[in-house]
Amino acid sequence: MTTDAHPAALADATVQALTRKIMDACAALACYTEVPGEINRPFLCPTTHQVHAYLIRWADGLGLQTRVDAAGNLRSRRAGPTPDAPTLYLGSHLDTVPNAGAYDGILGVVMGYAMLEALGDQTLPYAVEVLGFSEEEGVRYGVPFIGSRTLVGTVDEMLELRDAAGHSVREALSGYGLNVQDLGAARFRRPALGYLEIHAEQGPVLQDAGVSVGVVQGIAGQNRVLLDFVGQASHAGTTPMGLRRDALAAAARFAVAAEDLARATPGLVATVGVMTARPGAINVIPGEAHCTLDLRHAHDGVRLQALEQLLHTARAEAGARGVSVTITPKMEEPATPMSDTLRALLHRAAEAEGLPHPELVSGAGHDAMILAAHMPAAMLFVRSPNALSHHPDELVLPEDVADALRLSVRFLHLLAEQSA
Amino acid sequence: MTTDAHPAALADATVQALTRKIMDACAALACYTEVPGEINRPFLCPTTHQVHAYLIRWADGLGLQTRVDAAGNLRSRRAGPTPDAPTLYLGSHLDTVPNAGAYDGILGVVMGYAMLEALGDQTLPYAVEVLGFSEEEGVRYGVPFIGSRTLVGTVDEMLELRDAAGHSVREALSGYGLNVQDLGAARFRRPALGYLEIHAEQGPVLQDAGVSVGVVQGIAGQNRVLLDFVGQASHAGTTPMGLRRDALAAAARFAVAAEDLARATPGLVATVGVMTARPGAINVIPGEAHCTLDLRHAHDGVRLQALEQLLHTARAEAGARGVSVTITPKMEEPATPMSDTLRALLHRAAEAEGLPHPELVSGAGHDAMILAAHMPAAMLFVRSPNALSHHPDELVLPEDVADALRLSVRFLHLLAEQSA
Repeated sequence: MTTDAHPAALADATVQALTRKIMDACAALACYTEVPGEINRPFLCPTTHQVHAYLIRWADGLGLQTRVDAAGNLRSRRAGPTPDAPTLYLGSHLDTVPNAGAYDGILGVVMGYAMLEALGDQTLPYAVEVLGFSEEEGVRYGVPFIGSRTLVGTVDEMLELRDAAGHSVREALSGYGLNVQDLGAARFRRPALGYLEIHAEQGPVLQDAGVSVGVVQGIAGQNRVLLDFVGQASHAGTTPMGLRRDALAAAARFAVAAEDLARATPGLVATVGVMTARPGAINVIPGEAHCTLDLRHAHDGVRLQALEQLLHTARAEAGARGVSVTITPKMEEPATPMSDTLRALLHRAAEAEGLPHPELVSGAGHDAMILAAHMPAAMLFVRSPNALSHHPDELVLPEDVADALRLSVRFLHLLAEQSA
Repeated sequence: MTTDAHPAALADATVQALTRKIMDACAALACYTEVPGEINRPFLCPTTHQVHAYLIRWADGLGLQTRVDAAGNLRSRRAGPTPDAPTLYLGSHLDTVPNAGAYDGILGVVMGYAMLEALGDQTLPYAVEVLGFSEEEGVRYGVPFIGSRTLVGTVDEMLELRDAAGHSVREALSGYGLNVQDLGAARFRRPALGYLEIHAEQGPVLQDAGVSVGVVQGIAGQNRVLLDFVGQASHAGTTPMGLRRDALAAAARFAVAAEDLARATPGLVATVGVMTARPGAINVIPGEAHCTLDLRHAHDGVRLQALEQLLHTARAEAGARGVSVTITPKMEEPATPMSDTLRALLHRAAEAEGLPHPELVSGAGHDAMILAAHMPAAMLFVRSPNALSHHPDELVLPEDVADALRLSVRFLHLLAEQSA
């Protein structure tokens, strides 16, 4: 690995100090939790105040202007050279799943502050705003992206959703001390130069490739589908094979077809995550089987063709057994390509820092998906050791964080050159 | 259909009257239940007393000597010409599964009485004993055949089993007013001529063939096996197909292999009745999958070779995915062939009555399995409309019962000719 002599290169000592600060911040923020002994910070839970206070102290030290917007997003702004200079957004989310790890989301926010600290008083031709989104995981209200949807003006339809305790989003906002009337004012500022989100990969691709970081090519589109097979329960001993209406046999064929097709289709992932048989006795032929399909690909055409083929298989295997199948779509999200321009800058920054920079598809949804419809958006993934995420043992390695920091600060400079 | 003029042929009016009496008895006995609104009569439940009282009234009218043995079996004896004449046993069981139908087991006991009523005062060269076994379903103690095992002297090892309320078999017997000390005296009387059990088929074979009755060739041997696949749960979006350790994918391949092999092997039935995936979320690759196998065939060699092949497939499909599989045998029962001699008599009786008489394998276990180790045993199956059994809508058709009655009374006469 070589570090060139470009003035944008960070001193090793700076990288080391800031990496330590990033790791310490993630560890410190992990202590603000609603459930002692685990990391659990749903949307607008009381400990969110403490997370904000921790980061505001950091932001204040950097001379940033910080506010919590009407959706509870933490937003720290570094002014541009002029009031109408475009804004580059950096960030990720501050909420967590139950029993979470310390890095999912948090890392991207903390790194936003670290990037600005690394910049010091170097001027940029654009403003920078660090975003700590209040909600991305979809835990409390069953649907995600309340934070980032506020920035793009599509959060209103979510206000009457209710959580398990019966409280609406509107009530949750008021309860946290926010004013729903101000949601409009929380929209992103135009002109927007773009959005960069640094996030743990949450998968095994970078680890398998032996590299620290990767440039996200796009966020996969996905379908989620429920399949309910209904045949006829009967006696496992007295019903010959030719007279069965075995619902599970049809569902198992479907699961096998999903794996076969995904293995044969580059980039396609197909998962049957749920499978149940009823009545569910060792000596009774299942009269009902329920399973799910989660199907993702970076190209919508490939995904939709695969979906059609798999649902055809489900119907055919059911039909061949006198079994009916009801197919219920639960989610359909188109693929979100990341900005060509920003990706190119990430690749150039990696080259300049002497880092391998493979592209990979994000199989998971991220706030970048929401912002990409309104501004150029890009993501940098940091290797996830053992691919663990949404798990207390979730990790990122300090040396990988250091690589991501050098690369992303270089990105800020390259973007400055390009914007100048 | 022709009825020959053999003196053993029952008059149509007799058949009609007795068929009505059999159907009425089944309907009446269905009213003695522990759970109002359904038929539910576990081993030695209080309403068993009422069942016995109903049948004893019938037996008394026929001049039979009736007792309840130490295991709660109802036993009505028609004396032979001499005290040492051999005994033919007729019967089935009087207990039921929860929410049962009105015929499973009961039919065979009631038909025993009807056969003796049809005989009237015709002499036979052997004694006949009608058996109403107290326990066959295995509901209360998790293992079946407490009644018939008492007759063959293998019930002692079951006495300390405990039911859900913590009561042992021994305590249940005392609670019902029986004396455990007398179990030895409940053994069958030697010489035994054989055992004939009439039972609803509980499967679709006779219905599919369009015939009323069938001669059981043998009771299938069976294996029951649990399979636990353990891989690695991971994110459905971020884990490429090549890096998965999907436990359910392996289990689904196993289920498909079981169906394929059984379809390709005449007489083999293979059932995967249970299938679960954990953690069981639509967007999480299953790290664990649990399934079961129920495998039956009339020939032990075929069954054991199929079992070996399927377990090999389970291990191979698991291994190919970095998944482990733990295989736990739960039951292994060898096949029980029915007596050649008694089967031949059943076929001859059917011929004489002008009835089609296909052979079929019993995929379910029956008391005949227990007795077959100690005396010639045979079973006659009566068509199960819609193959329903262990279900409140379980049926037998009066016209099929009439056929079974004519056939089985003819069987008594043929056996008499042969024994004379």
